[in-house]
Amino acid sequence: MKKLNNEPASKLKVIPLGGLEQIGLNITAFEYEDSIVVVDCGLAFPEDDMLGIDLCIPDISYLKDNIEKVKGFVITHGHEDHIGALPYVLKEVNAPVYATKLTIGLIDRKLEEHGLIKNVRRKVIRHGQSINLGQFRIEFIKTNHSIVDASALAIYSPAGIVVHTGDFKVDYTPVFGDAIDLQRFGEIGKKGVLALMCDSTNAEREGFTKSERTIGKVFDTLFAEHTQGRIIIATFASNVDRVRQIINTAYKYGRKVVVEGRSMINIIETASEMGYLDIPENTLIDIDLIKNYPDEKVCVVTTGSQGESMAALSRMAMNMHKKITIKPNDTIIFSSSPIPGNEKAVSRIINELEEKGTTVIFQDTHVSGHACREEIKLIYSLVKPKYAIPIHGEFRHRMAQASIVKELGYDDEHILMMHSGDVVEMNMESCKTVKHVPTGSVFVDGSGVGDVGNIVLRDRKHLAEDGIVIIVLTLQRGTGQILAGPDIVSRGFVYVRESDALLEDSTEILRDIMDELADRGVSDWSKIKSSLKDGLSDYLWKKTKRRPMILPIIMEV
Amino acid sequence: MKKLNNEPASKLKVIPLGGLEQIGLNITAFEYEDSIVVVDCGLAFPEDDMLGIDLCIPDISYLKDNIEKVKGFVITHGHEDHIGALPYVLKEVNAPVYATKLTIGLIDRKLEEHGLIKNVRRKVIRHGQSINLGQFRIEFIKTNHSIVDASALAIYSPAGIVVHTGDFKVDYTPVFGDAIDLQRFGEIGKKGVLALMCDSTNAEREGFTKSERTIGKVFDTLFAEHTQGRIIIATFASNVDRVRQIINTAYKYGRKVVVEGRSMINIIETASEMGYLDIPENTLIDIDLIKNYPDEKVCVVTTGSQGESMAALSRMAMNMHKKITIKPNDTIIFSSSPIPGNEKAVSRIINELEEKGTTVIFQDTHVSGHACREEIKLIYSLVKPKYAIPIHGEFRHRMAQASIVKELGYDDEHILMMHSGDVVEMNMESCKTVKHVPTGSVFVDGSGVGDVGNIVLRDRKHLAEDGIVIIVLTLQRGTGQILAGPDIVSRGFVYVRESDALLEDSTEILRDIMDELADRGVSDWSKIKSSLKDGLSDYLWKKTKRRPMILPIIMEV
Repeated sequence: MKKLNNEPASKLKVIPLGGLEQIGLNITAFEYEDSIVVVDCGLAFPEDDMLGIDLCIPDISYLKDNIEKVKGFVITHGHEDHIGALPYVLKEVNAPVYATKLTIGLIDRKLEEHGLIKNVRRKVIRHGQSINLGQFRIEFIKTNHSIVDASALAIYSPAGIVVHTGDFKVDYTPVFGDAIDLQRFGEIGKKGVLALMCDSTNAEREGFTKSERTIGKVFDTLFAEHTQGRIIIATFASNVDRVRQIINTAYKYGRKVVVEGRSMINIIETASEMGYLDIPENTLIDIDLIKNYPDEKVCVVTTGSQGESMAALSRMAMNMHKKITIKPNDTIIFSSSPIPGNEKAVSRIINELEEKGTTVIFQDTHVSGHACREEIKLIYSLVKPKYAIPIHGEFRHRMAQASIVKELGYDDEHILMMHSGDVVEMNMESCKTVKHVPTGSVFVDGSGVGDVGNIVLRDRKHLAEDGIVIIVLTLQRGTGQILAGPDIVSRGFVYVRESDALLEDSTEILRDIMDELADRGVSDWSKIKSSLKDGLSDYLWKKTKRRPMILPIIMEV
Repeated sequence: MKKLNNEPASKLKVIPLGGLEQIGLNITAFEYEDSIVVVDCGLAFPEDDMLGIDLCIPDISYLKDNIEKVKGFVITHGHEDHIGALPYVLKEVNAPVYATKLTIGLIDRKLEEHGLIKNVRRKVIRHGQSINLGQFRIEFIKTNHSIVDASALAIYSPAGIVVHTGDFKVDYTPVFGDAIDLQRFGEIGKKGVLALMCDSTNAEREGFTKSERTIGKVFDTLFAEHTQGRIIIATFASNVDRVRQIINTAYKYGRKVVVEGRSMINIIETASEMGYLDIPENTLIDIDLIKNYPDEKVCVVTTGSQGESMAALSRMAMNMHKKITIKPNDTIIFSSSPIPGNEKAVSRIINELEEKGTTVIFQDTHVSGHACREEIKLIYSLVKPKYAIPIHGEFRHRMAQASIVKELGYDDEHILMMHSGDVVEMNMESCKTVKHVPTGSVFVDGSGVGDVGNIVLRDRKHLAEDGIVIIVLTLQRGTGQILAGPDIVSRGFVYVRESDALLEDSTEILRDIMDELADRGVSDWSKIKSSLKDGLSDYLWKKTKRRPMILPIIMEV
């Protein structure tokens, strides 16, 4: 950590624009004078209370305000929480995209879907290679993760080097390709590193994450034990190495492999085309040919390991799959663990499958793609940064990394617990948060981006809780005399056919209110509306202890 | 398993009316000739897709249809999933309630809330005691669980004995009272038991569940280590032994104890009044006096260990609690583990608390109240029933118990994987499912019981996804001429202020449809409504890829 010679006056700005308060939305801007480089550009899946929202993308106002500075997007790996917002963001801030081969392959599929492939420059970078982007140089370093071709980045700026791990684990015996380039981490560390931004996902877990290869051995045992019916394995579509191991095991045991689920098929196609998945000849068969083979010669690899209701495995479990019907002698393996929030959905599928008489296996058939505590210590010990910036994870995970870093001898002043939107200015002399820029989730609903906000969500939540009661009324212009109504229409409130009395009494209440308003000579619409609304709301609460949304609509003739 | 002498012609009917497809709704009818005894009467908490529903109770049509046979409700313990539906069910089927002292105490609180306390007979039964109910005799047997005073039941009928474990674990060193009466299980087993109905919750877990007492030792260590600020412990309100251990540890370390959260206060009051919780003098203080003591002399026991948004701990974490404000030197202990489905909510609270600088501890501070695999083997080995009926748990948990029972030498014919509503007729000679009676969840929403069904829920789901668009229109009676409208009002669809163009164009589309209908001379309301609905739906889908609920309302003047 020696001082750089001729250190320039300017400082490096590190600006996480998302990803520090939740899983997903990973995007960080690095700014030095006239240059901005953006690392990752991910989406987040909606929380339970974001009703009807399809996905969330980061607020990139800061990039739009500094659009002339943006030199490019550098992507660490091809998971949705790192690439998923690219098509939306590139529409507003078009800059070249740099990533390894498979990552670019997956990005290209997205850009094609959004009709952007012709407008965006993409460039494949090899591990070990560097690119110059404005005042930055970015080096891609080989790591291991639950998707192949993952990279860490060394970000060289005149103010110092930042090492960004991306998502990573240390796998000494990967299934495909090389182990993480630990030597290079050490070599860069020796040069003197300003800051390390390190994956915190598993920072609460002791020890080391197991090698992906150990799962191959488990598959071998399971295929040897279950020789009677089909073997159906659900796993993450993007885990190409997992799929490779399944296919190889199936081949060894003489089973044909059917791949099912749209995202699984997409990724396997992309990975095969690009040479990341060499499949033994005559092993893959089309799903329509499955009936030509006896059960004990078939293996199905499918999506749906998280219990997603529309994924292939769920459709099989619910008897809604067009081509595969579950049989009692099927063995179903969940090669996954539930992502927090999905536990109940996964359990529901397991129950359905066991009810059909199948054997369901969900233990010891998955390893994580993220570094545990000992691996985090290893990376810090190789890189020896001046500052530690725990990233990627909820606050509790990042705090767990902070506690590890403290064990390694760092004090609070050299551990930066950043928030999304913080602008940290740093060089080898100092480091401080200088301001805060706007950040947040932008909601995507259907084809609308950002047109659903908190007011709309609040209404959806209200509607979801107790439904809606609409009061309609036609008044004569001028006199305010009632020409039709008040009538009541409800949806999602009570079962109308069995609630005649309640609804009739409600209409009666509304008529009384109108009479009373007429006696008092009230003709102001907003006053009429609020009187009807409050009167009916009180009545319904008394009768049902519910508060439906009440919407008075007055028409004038 | 010897044959009973003079075996009667009639068989015992076992009829689970809920609880076999999910956690909760535990209720089972035992019927012999003119006598029915009901064991437990629990509620279930709503699933995520049951929008706006407060709780679910079992469909008890079968009991209503056989009301003259019902001799009483026998309750195993005081958890909501075993007593929570009683106030609702007793309104329809009033029969005496039998349970141990604390269980009756908790039931009495419920009956008071529902104004039923004067109409229902309750009787406290001691462990070891039996009661006669029609042709049945029911014996209460001491067990251990995460609430004190839990019982197993031996149900003696002329056709044989059924042992029902309730929820249980084997705790050789309980914090209060006796260990489970294993001798009595053995003694009854020796008589010859027809069927064992055994708790399956933890049947997937190896080994033994740890003693509640081990948590006391963990508390001792934690109190010794954290001497600087307040200690705030969140746990299950009903776990009286846990609270006892917290209070005793606080007393030992010279801390005053504040109890917070309505359900926690209720249960502690009930338990103290009944002698289940002897609190050292001058230990409990009122929450308003907390400011008179230095932080290191205070311990708070609170609800909210499941991240429930309105519970005391959540309100503290969100700065919404009126009397307790979180401080950075607080130590917060989750003496609980998240119930499946609550993981994200718990994580959210942990993040909030750690953001405030507190120390959060959530490992090794909880033990389960349910038997693991070795304990299940133990109970089967003592009772040695002719038939095994795994109960209490999702299908996967009950299947896991079935696999244990198979290891013990039972064959498929002697393991009954029942479904709610199955009527099994059995005696020592034979056992078969003879019919199926109606069962299911009845939804409670506000004060309404059963008035929200699948149609209302489907509407709520639709409203929650994409909101509602209402079309209003006033027509002249007779001529069908448009007097006012078509107007559009929306809620939960788009942010109206930023969607002027979309809504104006929509109105335009509706006018065109009305013109076209007028040209064709269409005056049928239902035709007009469906044309408006379909036309607008297509347009909005094209523009937004959303499908809001569309509700045309026509008024006639």
